[in-house]
Amino acid sequence: MYTVRVRDHFMIAHSFRGEVFGPAQKLHGATFVVDVEFRSTSLDDNGFFVNIGPATETLHRILGGLNFRNLDDEPAFKGRNTTTEVLARTVFDRLAAAIGGGELGAGGRAVESLRVTLNESHVASASYEGRL
Amino acid sequence: MYTVRVRDHFMIAHSFRGEVFGPAQKLHGATFVVDVEFRSTSLDDNGFFVNIGPATETLHRILGGLNFRNLDDEPAFKGRNTTTEVLARTVFDRLAAAIGGGELGAGGRAVESLRVTLNESHVASASYEGRL
Amino acid sequence: MYTVRVRDHFMIAHSFRGEVFGPAQKLHGATFVVDVEFRSTSLDDNGFFVNIGPATETLHRILGGLNFRNLDDEPAFKGRNTTTEVLARTVFDRLAAAIGGGELGAGGRAVESLRVTLNESHVASASYEGRL
Amino acid sequence: MYTVRVRDHFMIAHSFRGEVFGPAQKLHGATFVVDVEFRSTSLDDNGFFVNIGPATETLHRILGGLNFRNLDDEPAFKGRNTTTEVLARTVFDRLAAAIGGGELGAGGRAVESLRVTLNESHVASASYEGRL
Amino acid sequence: MYTVRVRDHFMIAHSFRGEVFGPAQKLHGATFVVDVEFRSTSLDDNGFFVNIGPATETLHRILGGLNFRNLDDEPAFKGRNTTTEVLARTVFDRLAAAIGGGELGAGGRAVESLRVTLNESHVASASYEGRL
Amino acid sequence: MYTVRVRDHFMIAHSFRGEVFGPAQKLHGATFVVDVEFRSTSLDDNGFFVNIGPATETLHRILGGLNFRNLDDEPAFKGRNTTTEVLARTVFDRLAAAIGGGELGAGGRAVESLRVTLNESHVASASYEGRL
Repeated sequence: MYTVRVRDHFMIAHSFRGEVFGPAQKLHGATFVVDVEFRSTSLDDNGFFVNIGPATETLHRILGGLNFRNLDDEPAFKGRNTTTEVLARTVFDRLAAAIGGGELGAGGRAVESLRVTLNESHVASASYEGRL
Repeated sequence: MYTVRVRDHFMIAHSFRGEVFGPAQKLHGATFVVDVEFRSTSLDDNGFFVNIGPATETLHRILGGLNFRNLDDEPAFKGRNTTTEVLARTVFDRLAAAIGGGELGAGGRAVESLRVTLNESHVASASYEGRL
Repeated sequence: MYTVRVRDHFMIAHSFRGEVFGPAQKLHGATFVVDVEFRSTSLDDNGFFVNIGPATETLHRILGGLNFRNLDDEPAFKGRNTTTEVLARTVFDRLAAAIGGGELGAGGRAVESLRVTLNESHVASASYEGRL
Repeated sequence: MYTVRVRDHFMIAHSFRGEVFGPAQKLHGATFVVDVEFRSTSLDDNGFFVNIGPATETLHRILGGLNFRNLDDEPAFKGRNTTTEVLARTVFDRLAAAIGGGELGAGGRAVESLRVTLNESHVASASYEGRL
Repeated sequence: MYTVRVRDHFMIAHSFRGEVFGPAQKLHGATFVVDVEFRSTSLDDNGFFVNIGPATETLHRILGGLNFRNLDDEPAFKGRNTTTEVLARTVFDRLAAAIGGGELGAGGRAVESLRVTLNESHVASASYEGRL
Repeated sequence: MYTVRVRDHFMIAHSFRGEVFGPAQKLHGATFVVDVEFRSTSLDDNGFFVNIGPATETLHRILGGLNFRNLDDEPAFKGRNTTTEVLARTVFDRLAAAIGGGELGAGGRAVESLRVTLNESHVASASYEGRL
């Protein structure tokens, strides 16, 4: 199994509902350093599957839809807590949709699974991974 | 599959028995920077499964049972080499027992597997992972 | 010259005023991973100057005054942009005041200068350093 | 499942054929920081499976066969693009052959699978993993 | 003193002349992960001195003049070894010239000194720093 | 000013005397990941000052004099606490002596100052720097 990983980041404000969140119920924010792993069992004749240039651009475009936002005001998250886990899943779903829509071409169609990790500090991260 | 990762560390003395260990047969020590990954296939209504605050506290309590010790004197390791692999398994077992004992509540019961990694330097680490 | 460095982090929401900030004029947020360097030309008889345990606690208390806040609502920053540079200076000033107030004891009095670095992502940081 | 990871690096020149590579069609180069993960389900009586000392030496010898080379001139890669993915597979195959040839002894025979990751910058890497 | 740091990278081929370089006399290559620190004693009314957006773009443009090249063929380095030290100085000089030419505006004119660090692997780097 | 940095590590056992050290009075240990920065204002005709190969070997030899030891039993530290600060100074002094003794040749004689940093975990380090 081959894996290609690329890194980017985004910066958001949000708050959480539920006593379990303690002080994180107040409006605060985070930088998420994002690692995306694309996986495939084979390479094409060029010696790769997903082209790292377009893959990086697609990731950057998707993170741009979250960057510099207050997620409490985003319709996509209405009624939900935007935990690191939920955001990892959101980036996964949007990347999967882009790949399914052909945005990464033949290389994208070779992607069998994705793992999206959001690093929120030097001591914590959350990931979502799944098959396409 | 969702993964949540938290990081902490502990510092111990120990020695190894067996010629294969060369100079590490002498009493020396290590800092272990510990990454624990908790895995689950689903999130609860709050948008998470294991609560990162209590999970961090439980990990800190468990590492506190090893921190600032000479492992050669610890009954738990009598007659065994406390290699990085063995210590990764030890932290795994103690975390699994804490979760099994309900210490992390409903979120803990949602944990399906754990991976414990002990980073011993900038060039080496060992992990143990398994299902709960 | 001796330097001791400790690391912690905090997570905030904020926005910037001024067209130069582009999309960062919108409410967003950041995780700041904070490195504080304490510097002294000499050690005491114990073999250190600032005690790393209390120094870490003092840093944690000071960052707790910023953590999980919307800095746009904090009186301390009224009328100012809370750029990474400004926040590095704020942490520096509060640490310097704590040391000046004797919070770190004799070891604190031996501190000749401080450097405070706020890492805002994997590709950017800002620092403030100065003599006490 | 136990995993042991060791790190080393190598530095090469190469170029890629195919318009899809854009400016990387020109002769350029890379540092690859290499992480190898060895995996086994059990430990021996010493408390490990693969001995980290010889494993590190074997990895260093294998990377030495690539280090300080222009890969465009290496017969092993004739007619192929030496992408990060292809090189991860190459290191995997050479390590697998060394283990199969008994170079890591009984510990090597306990290795059930390998993962080889080549980090090419702070924002990109590629891996190949498989069973032995 | 305030410091702002940004990170980018470039990938090149080169060889060294002189027996002292051993196997590095052969054509090989490197990824350089570049950290640039801009320093100033004061901030403007916006709360910063150098604008991190344009600073990042200027650095990227300058590294683009080195990226994906065989430095042995670059007239700028004719007759010289392109060691990490020499390349750190080169990036410093080109950034200093860009700042001197007004490319970073008023914020650039506030920059009093620069430090350019080229990380060539996980175990080695070289820097050049100086006043403007 | 040019700086060249190299990294290596060592692993030791030790204990501290003095109530101020709390649980660290017990025999424990640490991994120290060591960064050494060599500084010079000029380069030689080869494009460097200190040769990174011999510099790395000298550092490795010096750390070998500490590695896999119980520092409580080392005559060099009799009656002293081997804090991270003291150990950073020790590595500095031994490197300075090696350079003074000509071990790094002409390049070593060009070294004007050194900085030695011992990283003891992901959240703490200590350094000693000085002129030669």
